[in-house]
Amino acid sequence: MKETPKPTLLVALGGNALIRKGEEGTVPQQFKNLAMPIRQIAKLSQDYRIIITHGNGPQVGNLLLQQESCQEVPKLPLEILVAQTQGQIGYMIESTLDSELMDLGIHVKPLISLITYVVVDENDPAFSDPSKPIGPAYKRKKDAPPGQPVRKTAKGFRRVVVSPQPVTIIEKREIKKLINADFIVICCGGGGIPVAREGRAFQGVDAVIDKDLASSKLAEEVGVDIFLIATDVSGVALNYGAPDQKYLRKVTIKEAQQYLSEGHFPAGSMSPKVEAAIQFIRNQGKRAVITSIEEIESAVNGEAGTEITA
Amino acid sequence: MKETPKPTLLVALGGNALIRKGEEGTVPQQFKNLAMPIRQIAKLSQDYRIIITHGNGPQVGNLLLQQESCQEVPKLPLEILVAQTQGQIGYMIESTLDSELMDLGIHVKPLISLITYVVVDENDPAFSDPSKPIGPAYKRKKDAPPGQPVRKTAKGFRRVVVSPQPVTIIEKREIKKLINADFIVICCGGGGIPVAREGRAFQGVDAVIDKDLASSKLAEEVGVDIFLIATDVSGVALNYGAPDQKYLRKVTIKEAQQYLSEGHFPAGSMSPKVEAAIQFIRNQGKRAVITSIEEIESAVNGEAGTEITA
Repeated sequence: MKETPKPTLLVALGGNALIRKGEEGTVPQQFKNLAMPIRQIAKLSQDYRIIITHGNGPQVGNLLLQQESCQEVPKLPLEILVAQTQGQIGYMIESTLDSELMDLGIHVKPLISLITYVVVDENDPAFSDPSKPIGPAYKRKKDAPPGQPVRKTAKGFRRVVVSPQPVTIIEKREIKKLINADFIVICCGGGGIPVAREGRAFQGVDAVIDKDLASSKLAEEVGVDIFLIATDVSGVALNYGAPDQKYLRKVTIKEAQQYLSEGHFPAGSMSPKVEAAIQFIRNQGKRAVITSIEEIESAVNGEAGTEITA
Repeated sequence: MKETPKPTLLVALGGNALIRKGEEGTVPQQFKNLAMPIRQIAKLSQDYRIIITHGNGPQVGNLLLQQESCQEVPKLPLEILVAQTQGQIGYMIESTLDSELMDLGIHVKPLISLITYVVVDENDPAFSDPSKPIGPAYKRKKDAPPGQPVRKTAKGFRRVVVSPQPVTIIEKREIKKLINADFIVICCGGGGIPVAREGRAFQGVDAVIDKDLASSKLAEEVGVDIFLIATDVSGVALNYGAPDQKYLRKVTIKEAQQYLSEGHFPAGSMSPKVEAAIQFIRNQGKRAVITSIEEIESAVNGEAGTEITA
């Protein structure tokens, strides 16, 4: 008798899974921070098939700063820096998950971390409007690196880069096969390496895709059962940061769309997460959840976070 | 009736597949250079199951130089830089192979590029003797970055780092499953991310593993049929660089071992390749071939390169 396949859970890890507020972001700090969210995912891997995606904002910004400080070697385009962060963070997540699985004595499933590239539309209007914050936050605008677009964000002044919409994940077919073969798959890091079609081939583009939007596209294309976005707050709140702030436990996509248009969610932080969740549900997804990295397990079990439903 | 599985071919791509002699090594140059060797591998994928590995010497050295020039962001340990080069080069090889397969109209197999980490022994004597050249070559010793070990190599003076022996490839089980499922797998980049056992977990170490020795270990652990090392010369030569230089077409491991001890092969270039080939054959491997990136296809067909046999 064939077993019913386990449901598939995609966890999109926010930047705070690696670097906490106020930290410098050394590698030992990043490994230490990863243990808590990854341990929960290790436990969940007993009952779910697992895909893990992650952001790369601070890491890709650091690589940009480093290469701009060095005249001796050729500069790399942004898509190559994204690829480098996939190697870096993919390794950190995979080896942490390996340890946690061993530590919990859980039967070790095959586990891999994949390079992923993602098609964007070269005519995306985002190309004329850099909007995604990357790298360090500066208290004053004049402290940011000169000659680059900078925006004020919740964390301070940050450099911004072009962030087009993800159109399709190149490795979707492979990821689906791997999930069906019960591999745990880490992929789509930093929103994926952005490429545009050029005839029958692809050409890298100077951009960084939002990791929640890319994860939503992957969740849709692979057909996952639960799309969970793990961030630094318990869920989606109305009047966020105000005295009358109110967390929502359940919200329909229609309500979420209305709150979005009323400006309840800060651009560049909660707003793309809510959009990503809406897109997943709109594209026939079943369950989308936004929660904190501390409550991943509870949220999967329906005990925490905000559910976005049809 | 079940088809006999195709034989497995592992191609270890040398640094010249990405950066040619005298080039600065920009990303467009690296993509352009990759097309020729990758096109041959694309053709071979019709008759063989394929694993591709690659070096990272110039790329990891560049990352080191870049981070040393920048005081603003935390320094990363060497194993993280290796992980970054796996992302970078894995992406470049995967996307080039994708294009070449499409261009040739070859039925596209599943194709992925994997993060790979490799166990080393923390008591390896290499830890007290940095020997692996990385990064740019300098004409004069005093031009090299200060405060770092430097050695004279065939290309000039280069920084050297610790290079321990690979003990085992962590993802060997996954790679074997993938090959059996007819995936084309790019892995073990830059010799793999070096880690040492620490209780039940692994800890990254400040080193770079030789990519040919790591590829030999992978070839053994996965059980490949042909282990091919592609480099910048047609094969193994006696009296290399001298007027009486003589290429060898076939050499037994006993002969190869003797030539090695007689110093026919330059340390840090042909010597580890011959050692890697010997190790593979000694560990029950069938065919090991050393050839140029121009002659990968001919060498697989037995028409070029040097075969190392039992």
